[in-house]
Amino acid sequence: MSSPFSLGHSRDYTIETRELLGNKKVVKKLFTPGPLGVSVATKEAMLQDIGSREKEFTDTVKLIRQLLLDLANVSPEEFTTVILQGSGTYMLEAVLQSATPRDSGQVLVLVNGAYGLRIEKICERVGLPYESIPFPEGEKVDPQQLELILRNKKQQFSTVVVIHCETSTGVINPVKEIGLIVRKYCPGAAYIVDGMSSFGAIPLDFQDSQVDYLISSANKCLEGVPGFSFCIARLEHFRKCKGNARSLSFDLYDQFEEMERTGQFRFTPPTHALLAFHHALMELVEEGGMKARGRRYHANCEIIREGMKKLGFKKLVPDAEEYDGFIITSFLNPSDPNFTFDEFYQRLLFLGQVIYTGKVTQKDTFRIGNIGHLYPEDMNYLLNCIECVLKDMHVAIPVSY
Amino acid sequence: MSSPFSLGHSRDYTIETRELLGNKKVVKKLFTPGPLGVSVATKEAMLQDIGSREKEFTDTVKLIRQLLLDLANVSPEEFTTVILQGSGTYMLEAVLQSATPRDSGQVLVLVNGAYGLRIEKICERVGLPYESIPFPEGEKVDPQQLELILRNKKQQFSTVVVIHCETSTGVINPVKEIGLIVRKYCPGAAYIVDGMSSFGAIPLDFQDSQVDYLISSANKCLEGVPGFSFCIARLEHFRKCKGNARSLSFDLYDQFEEMERTGQFRFTPPTHALLAFHHALMELVEEGGMKARGRRYHANCEIIREGMKKLGFKKLVPDAEEYDGFIITSFLNPSDPNFTFDEFYQRLLFLGQVIYTGKVTQKDTFRIGNIGHLYPEDMNYLLNCIECVLKDMHVAIPVSY
Repeated sequence: MSSPFSLGHSRDYTIETRELLGNKKVVKKLFTPGPLGVSVATKEAMLQDIGSREKEFTDTVKLIRQLLLDLANVSPEEFTTVILQGSGTYMLEAVLQSATPRDSGQVLVLVNGAYGLRIEKICERVGLPYESIPFPEGEKVDPQQLELILRNKKQQFSTVVVIHCETSTGVINPVKEIGLIVRKYCPGAAYIVDGMSSFGAIPLDFQDSQVDYLISSANKCLEGVPGFSFCIARLEHFRKCKGNARSLSFDLYDQFEEMERTGQFRFTPPTHALLAFHHALMELVEEGGMKARGRRYHANCEIIREGMKKLGFKKLVPDAEEYDGFIITSFLNPSDPNFTFDEFYQRLLFLGQVIYTGKVTQKDTFRIGNIGHLYPEDMNYLLNCIECVLKDMHVAIPVSY
Repeated sequence: MSSPFSLGHSRDYTIETRELLGNKKVVKKLFTPGPLGVSVATKEAMLQDIGSREKEFTDTVKLIRQLLLDLANVSPEEFTTVILQGSGTYMLEAVLQSATPRDSGQVLVLVNGAYGLRIEKICERVGLPYESIPFPEGEKVDPQQLELILRNKKQQFSTVVVIHCETSTGVINPVKEIGLIVRKYCPGAAYIVDGMSSFGAIPLDFQDSQVDYLISSANKCLEGVPGFSFCIARLEHFRKCKGNARSLSFDLYDQFEEMERTGQFRFTPPTHALLAFHHALMELVEEGGMKARGRRYHANCEIIREGMKKLGFKKLVPDAEEYDGFIITSFLNPSDPNFTFDEFYQRLLFLGQVIYTGKVTQKDTFRIGNIGHLYPEDMNYLLNCIECVLKDMHVAIPVSY
């Protein structure tokens, strides 16, 4: 592995930073929303050659599909799992194409951030008629407001999409309350939840929430490596989707049929990423399942927020809001003239700490994720590094706004 | 790593087979067209966490893109490399969508096997108007015949597609001769070559062949792990493709622009697969480039064909045909009543030797690939196993037809 400490920097370092740099045991840590750091054992599961049509491999895929249903706490009579090669966005496009009827489709997108906007963009490019209801960035999709709007809409929607955790801001949307309103005002519509960075850590009751399609990815809370995404689909709706897709690769129903019939993928799957994912799911079971993982992420999140608050940093989403998640936190850039995000980022990277850029349109922010193979000691170490870096940058602590 | 030898079998084994089974040093070998076996060091390159927006990663991607142009022996002024997450079929779909104008597009598909038929299927599902010219399975796309047909066609084509190595049969199509005819009778058309299982081992002169788009995948002759595909695109044509795609994920021009602008992917890339690929390309350089690799594959192929001939097996493609490739060989199933492909396959798998099913519509065949991290000793060992397995199955040697 090449050293993450290969980048030099022209400015001086305080003695504390020099001590950190001298710490040979430091391993690079990713505080990103994914790809994120995974355990050594999960990565080591990729050290094998396996054929995509071998029974050992197809058995592994079958087990993965079953484990995902178990995790979602749904029965295989009512739901199925479909796996799709590629990034999470591909699955969003595949579900949107597959769950929306070719002629009479009309998509409703509930937008409160960058990932909602991406759904709009997919609809536009694919040519799916859509309408969106915007909510302020950094706030939740408000069920009461949604109900008021839908009550007066004459438009019939075939498909409704919402993001569970808006990773741009960290906001958690109330998918259950929204689901009940969707069922009431858009009867028959497919209710799609983008659970990319929530599934595996934030509980979601498929029955109470009325979810028809839950989309997520290998390299988020389930702590696998990137290479594929998956969707948990309600069969009652999904069975009506044959022939909807305007793409061979994104024809989710075709993918499902092939998997059911032969246990195989239609096209070359990322075999190594699937082996890693299988191991990652075993680790999740060992950790105590979704609840235990949620607790660890929660603890990670508390440490970073508490510590950043002591350093004077302000969050984008106010404290004590019920929609404040615990997957990733957006912090506002301080106004200290010595602070620039780029230098802050580079100096932290030099210490092996990889934080993330902001993705909010109206304010300058940066993000710190706390999912992946991260534990309280990693969060404390990051805080230690942040404090040293601020000192090195001559940024006054607590930081000012 | 779990043992490949975990499957039992009810029938007896000869003493030779028992000796092979007792050989603890045997490592599983894939004789498949991909995913295939890769070196230990290539797999070990995946043992690291890296953020997709880190400079170390974007520098690696930049280097990969440049190395692919070098391999193709084309200049960055005339060509570019675009990488796309997912399987090779995705890239076929992305190039077809992107290189075909929205309104006036008309695709011509030259079909002499299963992979040609897949192109037809993509056109059908995406809604691209297409026409195909069929050639017999197991024979080449014949340039003379093609010229006769095109001479009398009034139809204008915007896009022409051919498969370089028809992996279903192993046939190599004469892409250069076809390219000249395409330029003559379809001026202005994009000439797309599916080089999935040829690029990296079978030379292709981009200028002489008039190729506009060459598509291939990480996990074929370049000996990486599956997770993405790539395309080498002629800028003169590619620059006209903005806005053609009817998909966000498969918008190759969008992907290209983002890579050029930021060095990053639009959506989460398979970071580990890309690190492995970078290592795999270094190994290719060390081996002596495409020519040296081609020679190794050629030697592997000779050994297997010679040995199989001695055992009485017949090839699908007759010897001494100039379109007989050296990537994979289709063998006809013998008629011995004791031979069934399934048992043959299972028994070989039990010995750690993974061969491949046939993919020919009219005849019963199986395939043996010789690409990937395979050397003459691996081919000889496979032959040894095949002989033992035939004896165990009580199939008379030489096999009968």
